Amino acid sequence: MQEVGRMAAAIHAGDRRALARAITLIESDRADHRATAIRLSESLSSATASASALRIGLTGTPGVGKSTFIEALGLMLTGAGHRVAVLAVDPSSARTGGSILGDKTRMERLSRDPNAYIRPSPSRAELGGIARRTREVTLLCEAAGFDIILIETVGVGQSETLVSEIADIFVLLLSPAGGDELQGVKRGIMELADLIVVNKCDGDLRAAALRTVADYSGALRLLRRRKDDPDGYPCAMPASATTGEGMDNAWTAIRALAEARRQSGAFQAHRAAAARAAFEGEVRQALLVRALSDPKIAAALARLGHEVEAGRSPDGAAAEVLASLDGAT
Amino acid sequence: MQEVGRMAAAIHAGDRRALARAITLIESDRADHRATAIRLSESLSSATASASALRIGLTGTPGVGKSTFIEALGLMLTGAGHRVAVLAVDPSSARTGGSILGDKTRMERLSRDPNAYIRPSPSRAELGGIARRTREVTLLCEAAGFDIILIETVGVGQSETLVSEIADIFVLLLSPAGGDELQGVKRGIMELADLIVVNKCDGDLRAAALRTVADYSGALRLLRRRKDDPDGYPCAMPASATTGEGMDNAWTAIRALAEARRQSGAFQAHRAAAARAAFEGEVRQALLVRALSDPKIAAALARLGHEVEAGRSPDGAAAEVLASLDGAT
Repeated sequence: MQEVGRMAAAIHAGDRRALARAITLIESDRADHRATAIRLSESLSSATASASALRIGLTGTPGVGKSTFIEALGLMLTGAGHRVAVLAVDPSSARTGGSILGDKTRMERLSRDPNAYIRPSPSRAELGGIARRTREVTLLCEAAGFDIILIETVGVGQSETLVSEIADIFVLLLSPAGGDELQGVKRGIMELADLIVVNKCDGDLRAAALRTVADYSGALRLLRRRKDDPDGYPCAMPASATTGEGMDNAWTAIRALAEARRQSGAFQAHRAAAARAAFEGEVRQALLVRALSDPKIAAALARLGHEVEAGRSPDGAAAEVLASLDGAT
Repeated sequence: MQEVGRMAAAIHAGDRRALARAITLIESDRADHRATAIRLSESLSSATASASALRIGLTGTPGVGKSTFIEALGLMLTGAGHRVAVLAVDPSSARTGGSILGDKTRMERLSRDPNAYIRPSPSRAELGGIARRTREVTLLCEAAGFDIILIETVGVGQSETLVSEIADIFVLLLSPAGGDELQGVKRGIMELADLIVVNKCDGDLRAAALRTVADYSGALRLLRRRKDDPDGYPCAMPASATTGEGMDNAWTAIRALAEARRQSGAFQAHRAAAARAAFEGEVRQALLVRALSDPKIAAALARLGHEVEAGRSPDGAAAEVLASLDGAT
């Protein structure tokens, strides 16, 4: 416990090496590391539960210039006196471990900024593990005095739902493109977005970007507004991470929404609900591990597994395993 | 059981209304429907386990022209005497239920083809539910005499892993674009792909498409080849769903790979492993439901859930639930 106390104190004092060590601990699968990580999270949680840090989730399909945007936003924020942490959530790299391009290479200037901290995607984790780690690393970064946490996610699907739970504000980045399918398939993500930023509003793409903003503004009006949010949200706006145009507007919109949600209590309610969902998810996962360790179940899985491999319906075989358990109770 | 037998016979006889009714049954959450669906799956499974149907998974980010490509491929295949079923897997629509554009509207010509069957995305399902339904609907379609099943997925992440398990061959569709991030973030999906098709190789985009094919051909050479696959796979090739150019090449490459895998036994081994994974997944899900129905656990979840909402670490609270269970054993 002394070790945890010392570590927590060093993190609070802004010791970056302590932060990095704690993150490594949290990302470890070793049981003893895990136990220490949980104690560390507990000791930091009470200290930072009321913290004023803002957690911003960002997503966007490949090619929208996500890294460039995050770097430009991060530099703008450190320039304004904030301390910014960037976390990446990339479940698509689960199989191979990390992106081809490392996160720090992608954001070279921001990674050299003393008021910024960039944590690359953890590799080879299940979605549940990614959620837990992102949650705990967010907490660590807040304890270390970072007041803005940018959580980047890659992809169109489950990881966005995850990040939209952890984040206070969720931003969808788009390209000034078109494509017939775009609106249809984006809908699931669009509904998560508080803010849509159409990036690359510069040069030849400027007109297309403004058109895309208009299209999405129209589409957003068709979606239900989140209860308690002020008028005008969710909204779409143009920006260029390259020229800097519109970046301040985007930040103003994010900040105003966060402030409004703090006032209405929706901010705190969202964090409480997300924490509860995370807790229940952890318990479910652990219950499962316990149930699977029952030798009777392990035997049934092995025996029926062979039948399934030989052509039996997976769902029928699963029903048999469960029927046998119910009979035994 | 008589009902199941009649239904199975009607499906085998190619009765489309029986197929549609059976799919509706499979997509139902009602316990009595579920029991009938499982019996139906069991009765069809033994009959079609050795079927020669080919299951092709297709994915691609928004804007690559997925619908157009699938429609063109489907029409080409029905033209060659095949019977084609198209299933959509779209977890991003889980929150809202379905895409803005219905699947049939997206593929108007193919949906009117008597030798094609298009099943829109089931709405409002968990990823696990989507997997089970897609698996069972695939089986139904095969029982109904469809010899090519195209399983379309939307997004970059978990759903691709799911579909790559169900499918015999997995195709990634790309646009003739570029973008610095493209290669990095695609890697997880790229490793699942047996075939990369760069669509829209026509008109102004032709040169860009060929360049993209060259880029990805190079990248694919850096990836490990799947054991037992013939030389030259995975591969990248250009196509245009609009002009039809390259569509036959893509089909030839798919068919040749499927044939080679049948010869080597990898085809059958993949199906057996996927079925087993599906079986184990179903059992896990059901075990979880059982464990959560324990009143002691329900009480602990409620009590500690409040503490978590009030700021306690979700992971610490989860650890406490589990420690209490271990103490009780």
